[in-house]
Amino acid sequence: MLYLVGLGLADETDITVKGLDVVKKAERVYLEAYTAVLLVDKEQLEAFYGRSVIIADREMVESSSDTILADADKVDVAFLVVGDPFGATTHTDLLLRARALNIAYTSIPNASILSAIGACGLQLYNFGQTVSMVFFTETWKPSSFYDRVKENVQIGLHTLILLDIKVKEPNLDMLARGKIVYEQPRYMSVATCASQMLEVEEERKEAVYGPRSLAVGAARVGAKDQTFVVGTLEELCDVDVGKPLHSVVLLGRRTHDLEREYLRDFAVNQKTFDEVWENDYAGKG
Amino acid sequence: MLYLVGLGLADETDITVKGLDVVKKAERVYLEAYTAVLLVDKEQLEAFYGRSVIIADREMVESSSDTILADADKVDVAFLVVGDPFGATTHTDLLLRARALNIAYTSIPNASILSAIGACGLQLYNFGQTVSMVFFTETWKPSSFYDRVKENVQIGLHTLILLDIKVKEPNLDMLARGKIVYEQPRYMSVATCASQMLEVEEERKEAVYGPRSLAVGAARVGAKDQTFVVGTLEELCDVDVGKPLHSVVLLGRRTHDLEREYLRDFAVNQKTFDEVWENDYAGKG
Repeated sequence: MLYLVGLGLADETDITVKGLDVVKKAERVYLEAYTAVLLVDKEQLEAFYGRSVIIADREMVESSSDTILADADKVDVAFLVVGDPFGATTHTDLLLRARALNIAYTSIPNASILSAIGACGLQLYNFGQTVSMVFFTETWKPSSFYDRVKENVQIGLHTLILLDIKVKEPNLDMLARGKIVYEQPRYMSVATCASQMLEVEEERKEAVYGPRSLAVGAARVGAKDQTFVVGTLEELCDVDVGKPLHSVVLLGRRTHDLEREYLRDFAVNQKTFDEVWENDYAGKG
Repeated sequence: MLYLVGLGLADETDITVKGLDVVKKAERVYLEAYTAVLLVDKEQLEAFYGRSVIIADREMVESSSDTILADADKVDVAFLVVGDPFGATTHTDLLLRARALNIAYTSIPNASILSAIGACGLQLYNFGQTVSMVFFTETWKPSSFYDRVKENVQIGLHTLILLDIKVKEPNLDMLARGKIVYEQPRYMSVATCASQMLEVEEERKEAVYGPRSLAVGAARVGAKDQTFVVGTLEELCDVDVGKPLHSVVLLGRRTHDLEREYLRDFAVNQKTFDEVWENDYAGKG
């Protein structure tokens, strides 16, 4: 049997009791470590599980899935995914391959940023589609997120924005010289996201949002030092919410007064927050 | 400290290791048991936790929250919520009250139906806002869900529909005679939801969806006997997916071929599924 086990968001104790039992008994345990990461490292997981864990990078999952699935018709194999196994990234490919090989599979759900973001006080009913923000380069500034945010904004919904992480990326200069050297991991910050959003608005000029639009910056959701800030995009460009992982929620107009009351405590500047809320959000849904 | 602890979706072992630790050590443990239920009863939870649990019904949470919060500035109180503490129902009110009383609080996330529904193979990125469906009566058929589904449909997104549960509802005849007698719990089925949806479409006639629209029926998500079926709304009116809890996803046009491939195994009738997909979904996003 193949078990897809969600690990939750923060540390080794966020696994469910059911999931931990699977991990302890499985013949092999893989950790998907390229679309999301926990806030603790592999060694800490291994110490907690009392067993070794195999890192599954993108190459292994996408090109060598049969290695992962080997013998899974006879023995139990656990494939660990940060968050929920079907959260931000689905592993449908792997499961379709398991089906083709007649390997039974099941999944053990866990917290995903898609629902855990509710801890900021915004009602999950008022969220539209989720989008992703990638690191811009000089020559590559993909703005497809903007069209989807626009759809949400037009009906007054909040948008959760998942921020890029770069782990195990080869250094391109070294690659040109025939050597594989990996860059340091990079995790997009709330400030970078806010600034890239404004850059795209300046270019597209469709007034989907602007420097005075309210957004929530979230850091380390589910961890002890989980942090939320709320401010205008302009304010968030200068905010430092500390260590990764970060996410951003752009507020829609369809708000509830309880959302205002709960969020206000997290305001970068309560005066700006009150003004902007009163002018642009209250009663505008 | 007040701890909001997510219990996940199915049984007592879906709690996280972190959450279980809190439950074992807390001075008092409340179980929120009116907006969602696990598939196991309170006694099974108590046996697993090795301690007693106090049922918190709507009346207690909404009118007597200070009972729950009593002494929580000095001792640890755990408030257990099925799913994620901020999932389908937020408990913002309780937390605002805790803030007002200067009681520290934290939350321990867990799986929510909002992300766990991804196990059916639909990409969570393609979901719009979530809606709720309540039991219709002869005289009360609220159709506000229809307007929100319409917004999702217009931009091609899937809609998760959370189905009504009625627990601890007083019998109205008995109440009129001055006696409080509770009805048997009722949980809406996939079939009832599909039929109510079609009833509203017939009345509103805005062609938001119809008998040939595809939807997924989900039952007991996260449990061993988790079940998915996919069919037209007309087909789902006659489907029995077994014991509660159920949910429904109305498909949007913005689909991915992997979604088709993964879903097809769950089709009530693969011939209808293929025809409808080809005509109304493939390449229509």
